Amino acid sequence: MSRESEAFSRELRQIGLLKGLPPQRLDELAGHCAWRHYEAGQTLVTRESADHDLHLIVAGRVRVTSYSSAGRETSFRDLRAGECYGEVSALDGLPRSAHVVGLEPGLIASLPQPRFRELLQAEWTVNERVLLRLSALVRSLTDRVLDLSTLGVQQRICRELLRLARRQADGSWRIDPAPPHADLASAVSTYREQVTRELSALVRAGLLVKDGKGMKVVDIERLESRSMEARG
Amino acid sequence: MSRESEAFSRELRQIGLLKGLPPQRLDELAGHCAWRHYEAGQTLVTRESADHDLHLIVAGRVRVTSYSSAGRETSFRDLRAGECYGEVSALDGLPRSAHVVGLEPGLIASLPQPRFRELLQAEWTVNERVLLRLSALVRSLTDRVLDLSTLGVQQRICRELLRLARRQADGSWRIDPAPPHADLASAVSTYREQVTRELSALVRAGLLVKDGKGMKVVDIERLESRSMEARG
Repeated sequence: MSRESEAFSRELRQIGLLKGLPPQRLDELAGHCAWRHYEAGQTLVTRESADHDLHLIVAGRVRVTSYSSAGRETSFRDLRAGECYGEVSALDGLPRSAHVVGLEPGLIASLPQPRFRELLQAEWTVNERVLLRLSALVRSLTDRVLDLSTLGVQQRICRELLRLARRQADGSWRIDPAPPHADLASAVSTYREQVTRELSALVRAGLLVKDGKGMKVVDIERLESRSMEARG
Repeated sequence: MSRESEAFSRELRQIGLLKGLPPQRLDELAGHCAWRHYEAGQTLVTRESADHDLHLIVAGRVRVTSYSSAGRETSFRDLRAGECYGEVSALDGLPRSAHVVGLEPGLIASLPQPRFRELLQAEWTVNERVLLRLSALVRSLTDRVLDLSTLGVQQRICRELLRLARRQADGSWRIDPAPPHADLASAVSTYREQVTRELSALVRAGLLVKDGKGMKVVDIERLESRSMEARG
């Protein structure tokens, strides 16, 4: 085994899906993977991608943007080193439902579909993690459908801000860094202009203040109660 | 083996998830299941249900209504004999995310969680069907999030009507029976009043006519183009 493949095999130990696999299995997988470095801004998967590989993020961070069969887009989630993407296409062999772009330079290991299927059959722990991951996705998408069905835009923006806010050592709450308005719009399925308007309203109402690169949540209770107000 | 358990084992052959399993496996599963008859209108699963069983619909039809962790509800899908429900809780052991009610009298076989997990490990075909089913759910929920994010109510109602319309032998299109307005509202995440208003508008515009218990789609092309109009 070359020094390079030893290094690759070691990298795979950090992937959540593969944790605890025997070393010889990791060596084998490292050999089956295609390895490639990527840059920030580089497109990693498009709807036209012909492969059905499972992609393992060995280093860096990527953004997964999903779209429907009719081509409509909405940003979904950022993934970091240790996570993976592409499992749905790797399972059902249908076209990609996501567009993936690098957010910072990194390294991807791509496991071809037949090898992924062999792995699921050979290693119950991996299979079980995939089942649980899909279950979690079903739950979070269901929640999102329900949010979109039952909450107004104002409530959804407040909920997203609450999700991003972190409690500081002094007991105050901050969002650091403040997300670009376009990202926030995409996360709650609305237009950037509406996010800008709503954030200004929250600042005017004394719930939020801009503070350097972040935002300070001045009144977390009022933000919470605003997130639960009945749909307008 | 009693005559009753033979009959139960035979019933399980009709369940999509279990198709093609060896007879001795079906006998074993039939013995592990709890069997119960249900009536139309009977609640089969509530959010408080303590079990994490996988439920197999042997006869009849049920309605699955999902709700979020915050308790918001929306109707999701009707399932018929041969289908199953409850797989997400049976996999992750978390509380039920759906409420299930019988639509017509039927029979349910409930497989306890530990037996379901054994089955997944023992029978790759069943495991693979569960993986594909969850993948399909992820895709359809993603589509629904995107519809809700990018389409107005009018477009969503038109899309739902197109989904329900069936081509007749004479080339015309019908929806039979016409769904109750409340069901349609729930399917596209809006209020009943809005569905009533929009259906009246479609009738006035000459796209739909009421016809007995159903509806006739007079102009399928115009219904399609209306479903694709930009959001208002």
